[in-house]
Amino acid sequence: MSTNHHSVELAVESAATPAPFYRSVGDEADVFRAAARRGLPVLLKGPTGCGKTRFVEAMAHELGRELITVAGHEDMTSADLVGRFLLKGGETIWVDGPLSRAVRQGAICYLDEIVEARQDTTVVIHPLADHRRELPVDRLGTTLSAAPGFQLVISYNPGYQSILKNIKESTRQRFVAIELDFPPADIEVEVVAHEAGIDRRTAGALVRLGNAIRGLQGSPLREASSTRMLILAGGLIAEGLPVRSAVQAAIVRALSDDPDIVRALGELADGVLDVT
Amino acid sequence: MSTNHHSVELAVESAATPAPFYRSVGDEADVFRAAARRGLPVLLKGPTGCGKTRFVEAMAHELGRELITVAGHEDMTSADLVGRFLLKGGETIWVDGPLSRAVRQGAICYLDEIVEARQDTTVVIHPLADHRRELPVDRLGTTLSAAPGFQLVISYNPGYQSILKNIKESTRQRFVAIELDFPPADIEVEVVAHEAGIDRRTAGALVRLGNAIRGLQGSPLREASSTRMLILAGGLIAEGLPVRSAVQAAIVRALSDDPDIVRALGELADGVLDVT
Amino acid sequence: MSTNHHSVELAVESAATPAPFYRSVGDEADVFRAAARRGLPVLLKGPTGCGKTRFVEAMAHELGRELITVAGHEDMTSADLVGRFLLKGGETIWVDGPLSRAVRQGAICYLDEIVEARQDTTVVIHPLADHRRELPVDRLGTTLSAAPGFQLVISYNPGYQSILKNIKESTRQRFVAIELDFPPADIEVEVVAHEAGIDRRTAGALVRLGNAIRGLQGSPLREASSTRMLILAGGLIAEGLPVRSAVQAAIVRALSDDPDIVRALGELADGVLDVT
Amino acid sequence: MSTNHHSVELAVESAATPAPFYRSVGDEADVFRAAARRGLPVLLKGPTGCGKTRFVEAMAHELGRELITVAGHEDMTSADLVGRFLLKGGETIWVDGPLSRAVRQGAICYLDEIVEARQDTTVVIHPLADHRRELPVDRLGTTLSAAPGFQLVISYNPGYQSILKNIKESTRQRFVAIELDFPPADIEVEVVAHEAGIDRRTAGALVRLGNAIRGLQGSPLREASSTRMLILAGGLIAEGLPVRSAVQAAIVRALSDDPDIVRALGELADGVLDVT
Amino acid sequence: MSTNHHSVELAVESAATPAPFYRSVGDEADVFRAAARRGLPVLLKGPTGCGKTRFVEAMAHELGRELITVAGHEDMTSADLVGRFLLKGGETIWVDGPLSRAVRQGAICYLDEIVEARQDTTVVIHPLADHRRELPVDRLGTTLSAAPGFQLVISYNPGYQSILKNIKESTRQRFVAIELDFPPADIEVEVVAHEAGIDRRTAGALVRLGNAIRGLQGSPLREASSTRMLILAGGLIAEGLPVRSAVQAAIVRALSDDPDIVRALGELADGVLDVT
Amino acid sequence: MSTNHHSVELAVESAATPAPFYRSVGDEADVFRAAARRGLPVLLKGPTGCGKTRFVEAMAHELGRELITVAGHEDMTSADLVGRFLLKGGETIWVDGPLSRAVRQGAICYLDEIVEARQDTTVVIHPLADHRRELPVDRLGTTLSAAPGFQLVISYNPGYQSILKNIKESTRQRFVAIELDFPPADIEVEVVAHEAGIDRRTAGALVRLGNAIRGLQGSPLREASSTRMLILAGGLIAEGLPVRSAVQAAIVRALSDDPDIVRALGELADGVLDVT
Repeated sequence: MSTNHHSVELAVESAATPAPFYRSVGDEADVFRAAARRGLPVLLKGPTGCGKTRFVEAMAHELGRELITVAGHEDMTSADLVGRFLLKGGETIWVDGPLSRAVRQGAICYLDEIVEARQDTTVVIHPLADHRRELPVDRLGTTLSAAPGFQLVISYNPGYQSILKNIKESTRQRFVAIELDFPPADIEVEVVAHEAGIDRRTAGALVRLGNAIRGLQGSPLREASSTRMLILAGGLIAEGLPVRSAVQAAIVRALSDDPDIVRALGELADGVLDVT
Repeated sequence: MSTNHHSVELAVESAATPAPFYRSVGDEADVFRAAARRGLPVLLKGPTGCGKTRFVEAMAHELGRELITVAGHEDMTSADLVGRFLLKGGETIWVDGPLSRAVRQGAICYLDEIVEARQDTTVVIHPLADHRRELPVDRLGTTLSAAPGFQLVISYNPGYQSILKNIKESTRQRFVAIELDFPPADIEVEVVAHEAGIDRRTAGALVRLGNAIRGLQGSPLREASSTRMLILAGGLIAEGLPVRSAVQAAIVRALSDDPDIVRALGELADGVLDVT
Repeated sequence: MSTNHHSVELAVESAATPAPFYRSVGDEADVFRAAARRGLPVLLKGPTGCGKTRFVEAMAHELGRELITVAGHEDMTSADLVGRFLLKGGETIWVDGPLSRAVRQGAICYLDEIVEARQDTTVVIHPLADHRRELPVDRLGTTLSAAPGFQLVISYNPGYQSILKNIKESTRQRFVAIELDFPPADIEVEVVAHEAGIDRRTAGALVRLGNAIRGLQGSPLREASSTRMLILAGGLIAEGLPVRSAVQAAIVRALSDDPDIVRALGELADGVLDVT
Repeated sequence: MSTNHHSVELAVESAATPAPFYRSVGDEADVFRAAARRGLPVLLKGPTGCGKTRFVEAMAHELGRELITVAGHEDMTSADLVGRFLLKGGETIWVDGPLSRAVRQGAICYLDEIVEARQDTTVVIHPLADHRRELPVDRLGTTLSAAPGFQLVISYNPGYQSILKNIKESTRQRFVAIELDFPPADIEVEVVAHEAGIDRRTAGALVRLGNAIRGLQGSPLREASSTRMLILAGGLIAEGLPVRSAVQAAIVRALSDDPDIVRALGELADGVLDVT
Repeated sequence: MSTNHHSVELAVESAATPAPFYRSVGDEADVFRAAARRGLPVLLKGPTGCGKTRFVEAMAHELGRELITVAGHEDMTSADLVGRFLLKGGETIWVDGPLSRAVRQGAICYLDEIVEARQDTTVVIHPLADHRRELPVDRLGTTLSAAPGFQLVISYNPGYQSILKNIKESTRQRFVAIELDFPPADIEVEVVAHEAGIDRRTAGALVRLGNAIRGLQGSPLREASSTRMLILAGGLIAEGLPVRSAVQAAIVRALSDDPDIVRALGELADGVLDVT
Repeated sequence: MSTNHHSVELAVESAATPAPFYRSVGDEADVFRAAARRGLPVLLKGPTGCGKTRFVEAMAHELGRELITVAGHEDMTSADLVGRFLLKGGETIWVDGPLSRAVRQGAICYLDEIVEARQDTTVVIHPLADHRRELPVDRLGTTLSAAPGFQLVISYNPGYQSILKNIKESTRQRFVAIELDFPPADIEVEVVAHEAGIDRRTAGALVRLGNAIRGLQGSPLREASSTRMLILAGGLIAEGLPVRSAVQAAIVRALSDDPDIVRALGELADGVLDVT
């Protein structure tokens, strides 16, 4: 197993791969491009599974930059982003964290749901997110200047944030905000058909079901049926599973554990999909 | 005691063992097979002791894949799953965690009650549970691509989840959901008789008792009498213990500490088993 | 001071010692023997000081197995049970924890009040408590199969458990449950006389006092006067202390700090023991 | 990668750079200069994005002193400020923290939102903030006397402080307090135009919008539209983005996640900017 | 500085010192002697400053045993009692904790306010407090048998215990309980005069004041004026401080921070001491 | 950078420096001298900024003893006071903490706001604060006897203490208590003039303002205007700042963040100082 400094290149997405499949809906791409030209950091808002990650992948591809993605969580500290010394044999080796790698290589660093991380990440995010574009690396006693092309992108889901976990105002004000939502029906059908590898008619039925669930009044669900879930259901159908089983497994039972809600969603699905 | 890298093979279940005894009830096996063909991760829902673990063992055997099982708990971190450097003599040795082993070997990794683990496990579960199928190993500064055959399976018990401990929506949406419950009486009798090594008449009496307890209205019990408990009682009977003692020890006293409830369950058992 | 691997034998109870003094009351020994024949784990329930530990010692002696006892506490982690690497001179030595020692030697491992331990102990208890009978030793990257004769015994005091600290249902269902209580008067007199080294008349007076306290209606005491306390009082009497002083020191002042309760218990004791 | 002691010079701002753009509003510069002459520590109060950092940069430039900035956070300990021993090869090297560097070099050390740090930072702040001007470095078993020119500056945002996180009175009493706010319109227009690189007419429109939002009665916003946000919007406009998109991205969507508030702010912006 | 194993002898109290000054009040010495003969552990109850420590010192002297005292606190773990490996030069040295030293030397180990320690101390206290008289030393992989003469003494202050911090019943039942209180007036006068080095008339005035404060109805004080405080006041008087200043400093201002209570206590003191 | 054992001398205050400026008000100096003669520990009570630290400095100077000061905080442990082993090159070096240094050198150790430290500090404070005068150093396996002249002084601010953080009664009873407050006007004028380097007329105006603020009925301020704040204002005046600016910066804005209170205090100041 190789642990030296150069092997990490293998982990980043190569710019030579085919363009990720993304369909633009509003001015999100224009805002991203303007921010990229000026090196401004971007804050992505939107519900789970609406395509935030895919949007960043598409923009990174268009701009010809590497993309390094990190999922935030409540135990994440700045060391997880910046790097650590590791003991290897008798030697101490410094291993860059994902943020340091992005800073050195001029890559886009996408911190998914960073709001969940510990607050000491603020120390490394603030000087990278304003005019300084610097990453202080305390452990090395040095400060890295971000290479041209480096851009910080963070995401969060407004419907999720609790009072305890929220983006600090002093962080938020440093970012250009872009808001995404589930795409209009025609675009979503195209996306589901393409990603799941199913025909447009079946994809259309799944999107109708998705919109029917999203439109439920006074819904007790914490999240609506996302594009990601529709693609998952489509994938099971593509593997030969009956539509009803696929929808139950990827959408209905994923949305709730409550027997009454599961039954109601199942009846709604049967009606929309006409599989009775 | 050997601590080198290869000895871990000994810990995984050999595909050459006889098929685990499992009786299918609904479409759970079909959904699992479809998910397996596409490499989609699976979320198993169902009460304690209903056979979730046995179901995964049966599917792993049928698919000819190794199965690596890990029980989640509130102190579990991503390092428990991914691995650690250990000092051994003057040398530092990397020891893969169970998830890394499964990723390298293309095994099924079953994370039982993963919802109880610390949230930094999210970092390693998300990229394995979507189209990336990658495991970032920060400590090695590298990222592992999952070998063909690798599949992630997680379980949880909906009746258990508190407000504090729940699967994040952004995790849940990545999984195909399968729901299990206690089997119908005829299948459960077959299972209990086989596993405990008792005749079908005695197994039938135990299953009748199990269903009587499950059917109690307004039951103060946190859990119902599970298939696992019926098998345990059968096992004690097979060792020569009187039915009444066995049922008291494996079912009644296991279900409650409250003297009144223990007495009531005991009377219920005497009535159902006709041992007065 | 010896720290090598073999010295630990000295800590386990030798099977050649005389049989621990235990008087059976119900079917507890039969259930234990049946569980032992099948290798099933046992859960002991009962109040503090009623003889749970002594019962396990007697069963281990009868079955000719070594007994390794560990007291659970809220800081106990799985490493306390499984073992650790220790640095010694320039060398790293693995030192088995008590559970690993029991697994290798086929001993009975008695985890007293394990419910108080941290939940990561679940990871090592579950696979040992079901059909697998395996102990995963992550630090060594290996899994130990339990030697024949290994049996897991855990105890807890139902009167104690809080909502926060309770045995997980998924743990509890793996165990055969045995419930103990204070013995009937004639057996308790025999036990107290034997253990404290006093005559049966004095022991009888102590047991009468114990039962009088246990029978108090609406008692404000958290625990009743246990067999263990009666033996302690007997021991002070055997050392020549007046009965009244001994009962005050070992029973009355041990049961409460409240001056009113202490006075009332003292008067009760004087009446029962007729020492006014 | 260089980790030796001298490389840290690269991280501090050179006094030879052009003067930071700052326009004085009240007596803040006079108070700062008087405090600097006497070596008294300064406490900066004011809302997020009003220019506290820029003010310190300007004063440091005028006084010809180096400026070392640290962002406080809830995981920050005194070791983050004072320094640590690091293992490098077989050698242990002491690496100064930012506060120690400032103390040795006679620099201004700006601790931004220090109130969020852990309280053990008190130990190093108190003796530096009174007549002693000393930094105890426990790890080295020594105490550093601050070089001439050393000055401690801390900031906090009164609107933010919770009951749990507040500056200790015994800390606060050691500091000279300066209060900043958003500048008057004419100065703010000059600042926005200069920093964003846009004409004064467009900057004027942005400032009008900023003041309209700040003047909202009973505003549900936690923070008002800051000077920093106006500059960010201006930057996007300078990159060719339409004014409306720029204002949405840098101001409206940054201020709130609530759809109703976002819509209302958008309408307010359209009215003020006359872009309908 | 010497860190070898033998230097610790210097820390224990030599049995050749003169007898500590203690005046017995009830049967406390008889109970202690009986417990000592049988090797039973002792629990000392009583208010702060009533002489618990001095009582143990006196008993240790009479029995000719060494006394090792440890003050419990909420961060104390079993390692603080049992010992640790320390790195010294290139070598790892085991350093016994105070409990291990007492176990090896057959000394009395007095754990003051042990109830405040962390619960993992239970693991080392239980097997030492029952018939086993063993100390498991996990770090060494061994178990120490207590040398003859070893005795465990713990203390606690019933007025102090909160619901959260209390002695576990399973711990408490292993101990012989002795209750101490402030001594009767004549004995207390003798103690104060002797310890402070003042005449009996002045000591008598201090004891009258102490008893007047202890007798206050509905007192808002958390603790009463202890014997220890009277001795402290006497000591200041012996140094030439006026009685009134001494009583203010050692008793009145020590008992309360509330200005009204301090004034009332001061007037009470003036009246009792007749110093107006 | 020197890290050897002798360099710490540089950190303590030399007895040859001129006497700290302190004006005695009541019997505080007499009580301190009596406690010092007998080696009794002292507890200083009083509001922030009233001169507690200066009083200790003055007493240390008069008694010809070194003074070692430590600021308590909620992360402080006994190791911070006693010392630690540090790795330096290939060697392990013990570095005394401030308390150990004071114990060895017979210095006065002043623990400022020790009540905020973690409770394991109790273990080192108790045996130093009673007749034993010993410091147990567990890490070295030894116990230090305090050199003649060693005296322990702790301070706390009664107005501050919460229910959670209070001095344990068993700690408090070991100390002689001295209470300080802001000095009478004539003494405070002398102090402010001397310390700030301003004339007595200006100092008198500042003291009048201080007393006016202290005398506010139903004040919403958590702390009153302290002597320390008056000195700070005087220092800014001495640097040429107008009185009004100086009072705003050092007193008004330091006392409150509330705009209404700041305005009211400003008007009060203008009236008292007659600067309108």
